[in-house]
Amino acid sequence: METAGELAPAARILLGPGPSNIHSRVLKALSTPLVGHLDPEFIRLMDETKDLLRFVFQTKNTLTLPISGTGSAGMEACLVNLIEPGDEVVVGVNGVFGSRMVDIVERCGAKPVVMETQWGNVFTPDQVQATLKRCRQPRLVALVHAETSTGAWQPLEEISPLVHQAGALFVVDAVTSLAGCPLQVDAWGIDVCYSGTQKCLSCPPGLSPVTFNQVALEVVRRRKSKVPSWYLDLTMIEKYWGEERVYHHTAPISMNYALREALRLVQEEGLEARFRRHQRNHTALAAGLGALGIALAAQEGHRLWTLNSVTIPVGVDDAVVRRQLLDDYNIEIGAGLGPLRGKVWRIGLMGESSTRSNVLFLLSALEEVLQEQGYPCALGAGVAAAQAVYVAV
Amino acid sequence: METAGELAPAARILLGPGPSNIHSRVLKALSTPLVGHLDPEFIRLMDETKDLLRFVFQTKNTLTLPISGTGSAGMEACLVNLIEPGDEVVVGVNGVFGSRMVDIVERCGAKPVVMETQWGNVFTPDQVQATLKRCRQPRLVALVHAETSTGAWQPLEEISPLVHQAGALFVVDAVTSLAGCPLQVDAWGIDVCYSGTQKCLSCPPGLSPVTFNQVALEVVRRRKSKVPSWYLDLTMIEKYWGEERVYHHTAPISMNYALREALRLVQEEGLEARFRRHQRNHTALAAGLGALGIALAAQEGHRLWTLNSVTIPVGVDDAVVRRQLLDDYNIEIGAGLGPLRGKVWRIGLMGESSTRSNVLFLLSALEEVLQEQGYPCALGAGVAAAQAVYVAV
Repeated sequence: METAGELAPAARILLGPGPSNIHSRVLKALSTPLVGHLDPEFIRLMDETKDLLRFVFQTKNTLTLPISGTGSAGMEACLVNLIEPGDEVVVGVNGVFGSRMVDIVERCGAKPVVMETQWGNVFTPDQVQATLKRCRQPRLVALVHAETSTGAWQPLEEISPLVHQAGALFVVDAVTSLAGCPLQVDAWGIDVCYSGTQKCLSCPPGLSPVTFNQVALEVVRRRKSKVPSWYLDLTMIEKYWGEERVYHHTAPISMNYALREALRLVQEEGLEARFRRHQRNHTALAAGLGALGIALAAQEGHRLWTLNSVTIPVGVDDAVVRRQLLDDYNIEIGAGLGPLRGKVWRIGLMGESSTRSNVLFLLSALEEVLQEQGYPCALGAGVAAAQAVYVAV
Repeated sequence: METAGELAPAARILLGPGPSNIHSRVLKALSTPLVGHLDPEFIRLMDETKDLLRFVFQTKNTLTLPISGTGSAGMEACLVNLIEPGDEVVVGVNGVFGSRMVDIVERCGAKPVVMETQWGNVFTPDQVQATLKRCRQPRLVALVHAETSTGAWQPLEEISPLVHQAGALFVVDAVTSLAGCPLQVDAWGIDVCYSGTQKCLSCPPGLSPVTFNQVALEVVRRRKSKVPSWYLDLTMIEKYWGEERVYHHTAPISMNYALREALRLVQEEGLEARFRRHQRNHTALAAGLGALGIALAAQEGHRLWTLNSVTIPVGVDDAVVRRQLLDDYNIEIGAGLGPLRGKVWRIGLMGESSTRSNVLFLLSALEEVLQEQGYPCALGAGVAAAQAVYVAV
């Protein structure tokens, strides 16, 4: 075995689909010596974290806590706790993460009712209504608020009442929207919502905040069968995070330190100011890319501020550009997933990564790399267009 | 909502059942800025981590990697990947973690064959043989190498051939033994083994190293049904950690930085030296406790070096002592679990927590606290007995 050397990774500017860059206060929190997972001091931190999560989710839900796994564990936790074998489950599939939900639904022995639209597009209330009419007794409807694979931004408010009229629960994937775009769990009638830490919260990957309202919690409590996953069984996890403090698994202490600090930073900035920052940087990037002749790929009017899916210009080599951005500029952007591989780049402007300097530096780098690839673009054109947005807004 | 203040937890000496104290180099690794989960630099770190894990597990198994969850997620990952509905699964239950495995086996729709012995005791090869004779076609036999709830140390070498003669796989829980007591996955014929990071590896909780040999991997690959958990499906996880680097979930970057550094520290110390250190500190603690009239609770000859389950003396208040150790000495020790609650304390001497100064300080603190409780013990008696061990060994 070769000896692994000292840890010395490159200083990346993380503009991919996550992780995003981490504030130094969060890194410092990570390096704080540990207390035990049942220490009264940790229990106080848990309570503070739950309060802070309620603030970012805009909810009063008692069961609001971080699952001890990444965003996908949160997705799985929400679905396996709510679904029983044989249940009808409506899933909107317009990207990778809807498809993943269908996979999980099937593993639960439930019956997915797949509602599809083109990748990059969103669902209309009419589509949801039509799908619900095909169902007998749907357990839940699951939609992705912010599709990380396409950059599409799904409106939720008008869909929620339709879901409830059909007697179903409304489950929302907010992995790439929480703390980056407006999300109001209570006001919008979302019953269950999950997210990840490594996107707009700018905390390292490893935890998945989830929130369940009382109606959803009753569904979990009235299950006829045990939750198929022991690790993700919320009836036990809530006893550790709730008043009883019953040992379930050992909470990831350091990651919880980091999440709490990341949430404190969100609180200090304020949600509205944070959303405006994300919007402004997205608008500037879009203007800059537009000046270079590069189009956003998601449906017009439904483009996320947090994750920009952009069409790779004809004749430009996807992998070469990404590799050059990484090697020569220390910038990470994301590749397309599934059918969008080679067709789009995914540029994340999330949390600490959503800054004016990152937008301008990325545009300048893209100009240089694309020009080298023979793509016709004037140096400074994209940067100037973005600057115009910053000056105006 | 009250404002959560600056993170400033107490400086604990962690002598409970985990987490253990963390080396400053591991804390520093945690605070290192992130690269992306598909960054070539992270991929190199993943390969190094796999190599280092093979070293601590003493295995050549290709599939050796950290699951993105705590030790319980590793337990669940091993079981749900190997077990299909209807399978016969032998589980040794002599503490909390055997019971947990039975629970998971049941959630898989499989048939647990429970082999029991008193908590604190271990299983003999004869018991295992007798249990296997009751089975038709057992899929696997699962035993806990180091029972964190009782401090019992289960011998494995003579049991392994019996398991294989019965055509079953041998699955071992090494959460509290890996890198603290000898464990030889390949030489002992262990097919599947899992552990946690927050015990003898002295890394924060949040990852679970697992290793599968080729025979076990074939069982996973030949499954008739999908693995019930998407998040823990090793057929997909191995494609991310293997040559293909196919995106599954976003790996917890910071936790992987920490694990790699913790493993480097193990490698630098050397496994043999590390085991001797754990043995010596355990022997000194046991001598010190003995001098105070406090007995170890696990079966004689099968007591772990890493986790000491000690009988709470009659008339002494469990919670008061633990609280006083925490408040006045910053020492955490663990409470008993399940039927042992109020009957034992669990004193962990794992990884960075297994030091001479911790043993002596804990004994001195216990002497003072117990004396205050009216328990007859002379100040310095326990410390002196431990010192005698250090001087002799």
